[in-house]
Amino acid sequence: MDKVRIGIVGVGNMGSSHAGYLHEGGVRGGELAAICDSNPARLEWARQKFGDSVKLFDSVEALLTSGTIDAVLIATPHYDHPRTAIQAFEHGLHVLVEKPAGVYTKQVREMNEAWAKTDRKFGIMYNQRTNPIYQKLREMIASGELGEVRRTNWIITNWYRSQSYYDSGGWRATWEGEGGGVLLNQDPHQLDLWQWTVGMMPVRVRAFCQFGKYRKIEVEDDVTAYVEYENGATGLFVTTTGEAPGTNRFEVTGDRGKIVIEDGKLTFWRLRVPEPEFNSTFTGGFGAPECWKCEVPVKDDNDSQHKKITQNFVDHILKGTPLLAPGEEGIKGLTLSNAMHLSSWTDNWVDLPIDEELYYSNLQERIANSTMNKKSGGKTLSVEGTH
Amino acid sequence: MDKVRIGIVGVGNMGSSHAGYLHEGGVRGGELAAICDSNPARLEWARQKFGDSVKLFDSVEALLTSGTIDAVLIATPHYDHPRTAIQAFEHGLHVLVEKPAGVYTKQVREMNEAWAKTDRKFGIMYNQRTNPIYQKLREMIASGELGEVRRTNWIITNWYRSQSYYDSGGWRATWEGEGGGVLLNQDPHQLDLWQWTVGMMPVRVRAFCQFGKYRKIEVEDDVTAYVEYENGATGLFVTTTGEAPGTNRFEVTGDRGKIVIEDGKLTFWRLRVPEPEFNSTFTGGFGAPECWKCEVPVKDDNDSQHKKITQNFVDHILKGTPLLAPGEEGIKGLTLSNAMHLSSWTDNWVDLPIDEELYYSNLQERIANSTMNKKSGGKTLSVEGTH
Repeated sequence: MDKVRIGIVGVGNMGSSHAGYLHEGGVRGGELAAICDSNPARLEWARQKFGDSVKLFDSVEALLTSGTIDAVLIATPHYDHPRTAIQAFEHGLHVLVEKPAGVYTKQVREMNEAWAKTDRKFGIMYNQRTNPIYQKLREMIASGELGEVRRTNWIITNWYRSQSYYDSGGWRATWEGEGGGVLLNQDPHQLDLWQWTVGMMPVRVRAFCQFGKYRKIEVEDDVTAYVEYENGATGLFVTTTGEAPGTNRFEVTGDRGKIVIEDGKLTFWRLRVPEPEFNSTFTGGFGAPECWKCEVPVKDDNDSQHKKITQNFVDHILKGTPLLAPGEEGIKGLTLSNAMHLSSWTDNWVDLPIDEELYYSNLQERIANSTMNKKSGGKTLSVEGTH
Repeated sequence: MDKVRIGIVGVGNMGSSHAGYLHEGGVRGGELAAICDSNPARLEWARQKFGDSVKLFDSVEALLTSGTIDAVLIATPHYDHPRTAIQAFEHGLHVLVEKPAGVYTKQVREMNEAWAKTDRKFGIMYNQRTNPIYQKLREMIASGELGEVRRTNWIITNWYRSQSYYDSGGWRATWEGEGGGVLLNQDPHQLDLWQWTVGMMPVRVRAFCQFGKYRKIEVEDDVTAYVEYENGATGLFVTTTGEAPGTNRFEVTGDRGKIVIEDGKLTFWRLRVPEPEFNSTFTGGFGAPECWKCEVPVKDDNDSQHKKITQNFVDHILKGTPLLAPGEEGIKGLTLSNAMHLSSWTDNWVDLPIDEELYYSNLQERIANSTMNKKSGGKTLSVEGTH
């Protein structure tokens, strides 16, 4: 096999972007072979854009049984990700799934289990894992430069979204359509990077979600979450779509200093001796370990992150290159998101792993009681400005 | 009256600093007339330093009835603040009390009530209220520049304290001696400024205090607190003495932008039109209000903040100058601190104003069950490095 024939399921905002770079030959060894969309207008768009070389399908089943593809790139609304991935595995196809992995962990666990039974390859579009700044943070923590992690604090509030954004698609920001708000749509990358960079998941979560605080929506548009890790570290995750200009600042403290990522820069305040060592030998009153402020260089080639993930997925299939974002890890960020909802709904702590049945029944209740009756706008927005 | 004769009660770390600038004539209209301390060594220190012009007392009662002073500056351990202030009011004296106002709100309320029955003047040593950067923030919020406040987020973790610091005094970091840890000793200024700058107190608090996490102490040395305000805004306060180098970053978001105070700079990200106005007129998909990053000049004369508060207190007595830090406002920051303890102890929300009897009984329980048996070191530390 020297080529991976890829079928894209869903050519809305993200899917059409993936189709674009694949069709232009942006991924070595990858070929845009087919497109599937239930919306005739989107298929017509694809026909005009890509011509006859790309096969078009209006049903997933038809695509999967067509024999025209080796792998699917799933870019449908969130709920459909696990279902489509499971079908694809059953048809012997490789799967690259858009984020989030799904809406509730129960369905994502089932997807992971379906994958585990096959020898197929499984990736997730966590394109921010290709971002050198987060790779550097992960490397500095994994290598021990920062020492034992004591605190994580991510303020990620620069997701401004207007009411007109929410009104642009019927599935947006509803329990039935998206299964959540800022946590499901805007934050999947940060929720993943939050655990991926520090290399640990929290053991419990206490979160404060506010639903429809700034916009006429039923899902959360403002969240503050506090977490605790097994090693005693604590963490914060603060996010909203209601603030402008907002902030994107990730601070991680360890017993050898602190790292802050903000404005595209990574700064390391490096203690000359680890804090516990200073503490055990210092005999004065007020005093602290000597600290150096280090500007850590991070190189970015500015190439498309999405393309890099697709390239890595294709290389994984063709050459066995390790996956940067294994599909089965999608459950981690989603677990954090589900736990934040559940903690707010129950106004209590949530231990991890979460009670997936309890989450599922709570979500169903919200879908059943929804009073949102939005017309399905079905407008395809430019993804410029998203990540 | 053209001169205020001041008696200082307690010449430990802070009291000796106050005595120093007062004796040098650093406060116009203020005179260091007397010093009271129960520790003979400290009185001997005062005798050698200030000579015969300053009267020395080894009991508060003797000082208050001596007729040698018009006002007291109370710089004893926290618990004694309200008791001493009440005695002073009863003897017709003006009172300037060190922070925190006390250890539990019940005693501070009683102090405020004792003051309300007199015509005496009452100030609190919230010297950070003289800091031009916080004055500017307060002014920008009060004048509407920032619009309606939506989020406050103070990371104040640069209070590094070693074990040897805690071992330097027997009263330090015990329930009986200080009645708390970082919230009572290091944070009173920030707890005050947090509410003073934005002009509002939270309505409820959910806090996560960790007790003796980094040091062999029984009180809190690590705190994350989430709060909600009446107008729907949320807030965070994160503090510890266990991190180096730590962070001091105060971010306030409003519907006209955000302000960040960090590294001695105040930066205002100013929206050209208020966010709600943009939202109500914008019809596109992804889009946000135009935002200008403004570096707001703040002038600091670097004169002692403590001296400024004492000067303002003296001017208030002599000329009726409005108090920058009225004594009765000390209960606000302490309420926040007590609420954080109580929320952690009860593992639940705490509504404000707090149940002061419940707090008091919980505190007594901790004093009774204390296993700390520290020798009273009684070492007077240089206050360099404190605020």
